[in-house]
Amino acid sequence: MVGVTSLDTAIAARLKRDAAGLVPAVVQDAETRDVLMVGWMDDEALRRTLETRRGTYWSRSRQSYWVKGETSGHVQEVREVRLDCDGDTLLVLVDQTGPACHTGDHTCFDADRLL
Amino acid sequence: MVGVTSLDTAIAARLKRDAAGLVPAVVQDAETRDVLMVGWMDDEALRRTLETRRGTYWSRSRQSYWVKGETSGHVQEVREVRLDCDGDTLLVLVDQTGPACHTGDHTCFDADRLL
Repeated sequence: MVGVTSLDTAIAARLKRDAAGLVPAVVQDAETRDVLMVGWMDDEALRRTLETRRGTYWSRSRQSYWVKGETSGHVQEVREVRLDCDGDTLLVLVDQTGPACHTGDHTCFDADRLL
Repeated sequence: MVGVTSLDTAIAARLKRDAAGLVPAVVQDAETRDVLMVGWMDDEALRRTLETRRGTYWSRSRQSYWVKGETSGHVQEVREVRLDCDGDTLLVLVDQTGPACHTGDHTCFDADRLL
């Protein structure tokens, strides 16, 4: 897929984005099946993820793209990407190197249990 | 928790809602660990979910609350609810009765594989 510069039109046609042009991407460890984190993707982040097989997201707070592990080394090798029945949510199955959470926790859901 | 009519203030203080007052809720089967669906919750949907232990969501298309399985019988008995490190995403672990997807699929992510 070298040289591809926009998201496949058949995929883009199925995506239902929010007002900001984003869809949530649920990231699950392909082996342990832990839900690791939820990131956000626009068309370009999804294109980069599919092309590079590195989990790539849009930061709503920083308003920029980020590749998971780019600074920490805790990269995600992407095995599968699935779109849900409504076309408005992605499921990304990954091989996660190191902890997935920026806090150092294994997942972003480890620290705060409500029930 | 009978008679509780608003979300616990300590929880409400930690929730970071989007512009519509919502957070995504990733629903995972507690046994199989499949990611079943993603719904949306406001404070009231979360309160009802915690209080009744039935997965309860806000429908963005219908602009109303819905209890998963209310019409289909495919209810979700909620085992755990977790808030992520940023306070803007929920993980809900459930015992799912029947298929989780309204299409009849086991999960909402079964039908459309992008990678």
